[in-house]
Amino acid sequence: MTTPRYTPLAASLPSTVPFVGPETQERARGQVFKARLGANESVFGPSPKAIKAMQDAVPDTWKYGDAENFDLKAAIAKRLSISPANVVIGSGIDGLLGSTVRLLVGQGDRVVTSAGAYPTFNYHVNGFGGVLVTVPFRDDFEDTAALVAKAAEVDAKLVYLANPDNPMGTCHSGDAVQAMIDALPAGCLLVLDEAYLEFAPANTAPVIDVNDPRVLRFRTFSKAYGMAGARVGYALGHSDVIQAFNKVRNHFGMSKVSQIGALAAFADQAYLRQVIDNVDAARRRIAAIGRANGLTPINSATNFVALDCGRDGDYARRILGGLIDRDVFVRMPFVAPEDRCIRVSAGTKPELDLFEAALPQALEAAK
Amino acid sequence: MTTPRYTPLAASLPSTVPFVGPETQERARGQVFKARLGANESVFGPSPKAIKAMQDAVPDTWKYGDAENFDLKAAIAKRLSISPANVVIGSGIDGLLGSTVRLLVGQGDRVVTSAGAYPTFNYHVNGFGGVLVTVPFRDDFEDTAALVAKAAEVDAKLVYLANPDNPMGTCHSGDAVQAMIDALPAGCLLVLDEAYLEFAPANTAPVIDVNDPRVLRFRTFSKAYGMAGARVGYALGHSDVIQAFNKVRNHFGMSKVSQIGALAAFADQAYLRQVIDNVDAARRRIAAIGRANGLTPINSATNFVALDCGRDGDYARRILGGLIDRDVFVRMPFVAPEDRCIRVSAGTKPELDLFEAALPQALEAAK
Repeated sequence: MTTPRYTPLAASLPSTVPFVGPETQERARGQVFKARLGANESVFGPSPKAIKAMQDAVPDTWKYGDAENFDLKAAIAKRLSISPANVVIGSGIDGLLGSTVRLLVGQGDRVVTSAGAYPTFNYHVNGFGGVLVTVPFRDDFEDTAALVAKAAEVDAKLVYLANPDNPMGTCHSGDAVQAMIDALPAGCLLVLDEAYLEFAPANTAPVIDVNDPRVLRFRTFSKAYGMAGARVGYALGHSDVIQAFNKVRNHFGMSKVSQIGALAAFADQAYLRQVIDNVDAARRRIAAIGRANGLTPINSATNFVALDCGRDGDYARRILGGLIDRDVFVRMPFVAPEDRCIRVSAGTKPELDLFEAALPQALEAAK
Repeated sequence: MTTPRYTPLAASLPSTVPFVGPETQERARGQVFKARLGANESVFGPSPKAIKAMQDAVPDTWKYGDAENFDLKAAIAKRLSISPANVVIGSGIDGLLGSTVRLLVGQGDRVVTSAGAYPTFNYHVNGFGGVLVTVPFRDDFEDTAALVAKAAEVDAKLVYLANPDNPMGTCHSGDAVQAMIDALPAGCLLVLDEAYLEFAPANTAPVIDVNDPRVLRFRTFSKAYGMAGARVGYALGHSDVIQAFNKVRNHFGMSKVSQIGALAAFADQAYLRQVIDNVDAARRRIAAIGRANGLTPINSATNFVALDCGRDGDYARRILGGLIDRDVFVRMPFVAPEDRCIRVSAGTKPELDLFEAALPQALEAAK
């Protein structure tokens, strides 16, 4: 008998990573990126008020953070006119997705998502022994009707929808998502990932109904609030479902500085609006750069733009490689036919200047 | 069929918290603590160099942290003369314990620990369906021989030892721990929690043998490095076992500011030695205060002192309550006979002054 004795599930899992980080690529290349436009981070950074709050909090980092995340839950609940009992805070949406899957998905349980949707969700489903069943995108949108139909067909415990979508940037109206909720098969919970919601049109989110135990909504400080490195996300839902996270979450797992920073960032809505404006301008510039080079931008409700390169995945991958060779970090969809695109995050002017200069060269090299 | 459909395991778990945090107690009392001496945090705080590094890093919090924790792993590996492949970084020891249990413990698997040892480890074991089997402390020490014997008896997959121990503060020599390792039954992995190692005598840790897949050692920046709120811990072990964490860990789960702070703290060994000296002085003062009030201090290799109140758990709980009523946050062991003690963390002079003033009153009230 050898030690350690892994569980059969753990023994069967690959050692993997949902994404290769830019730092890993930089080390492999021996060269840092000059433009960081691949991880949908917010180059505009956190609110200056959040920066100050975090810097002021640093000397207090000897204290564990509040295990209840009381202040942050209260602020979120107040703004959304719900109860703190409808809010759970976690280490980014990633951490909360892991807890969600752990609570619901056992070996062999079916989970439905779109082919090419968020890999970290898939990583968690695989990690708990779930069986992923995918449906294709439809015209670059996640296909809500097909997701629901497939969930019914395979008796799924979870169905995942990112609205707005990543990696294509498209979004459905709140009415369309509500129609999906209304059509959910019995026993199926909707994992509604709203990471990019702040960048989307006002009607993108269905009304929050915390009496409905069939939907969990996931939001984050990583995108519009510019705090990806702080690892703060939250989920909203029925109080019974939210309470269940207390069965499995790492109660003392939150960084205290991050808790305080998120609270300050959430309070600074004026800065948030400014970021949204900056992102909108950057989206338009990315689209214009794409068009000027013969690429077709896909209308985006996020902080990135998918640029349709007009041919197949191999061609787009060559363009991507050419950009990376020119120190411009971008990513692209993993799955056909969405992998005909490259995905460019909103950047500052100097970064988009670099992208603008590199793209024609990358296109030329890809031919 | 109701939604959500929890796994049978999740449905069976209580919503619980391994510890009630001081902030939760403060909110319940409507009064903040004046002395925070209950969570074994380091009131001496992080290194000023770590504080500066974290403050400087805050504006960069828009970037995700490095998913590989490359720099921190390299620094730890270099100091310990091992490979980065023998190091995994996680959100404190708590997070790493959760991943460890997840990798090894399935429904019904036996895990051995000491009755009254670290509750968060037990929380994880319960959370993954493991069956906890406990052995009593022996003269306020975790009983290494009994732990190994019980592990053999119940065919345990894991056995937990904190060395130095929490909540009693006692420790075994590295030789004694090595003897325990040598006596481990086949198929049993030792979870060696060395959270308090820096405060202990030099011979407390057995030599690190990364060729031995039967031991995982857990260390942290939460205690001697004064960064409990940053959530940075690490585990050391055989590269195959360390690599297995990549199957389940939250790859992008670390705070970037925390990564940078831990690296700076780890580099400042002069400050660490100063903290250790400060803690030693505080331990002696806590012991003296205890003795002056008729309590018996237990010799401590940690940053806290267990004070034997000389009667039963009810009596100690009354004393604890009296201290809390007087705005002094302390904790105590959960299980008899160790619960005859209260546990007081090393504090600054003003905090220990408050403790010194409150203790006689709490003792009087407890009579």
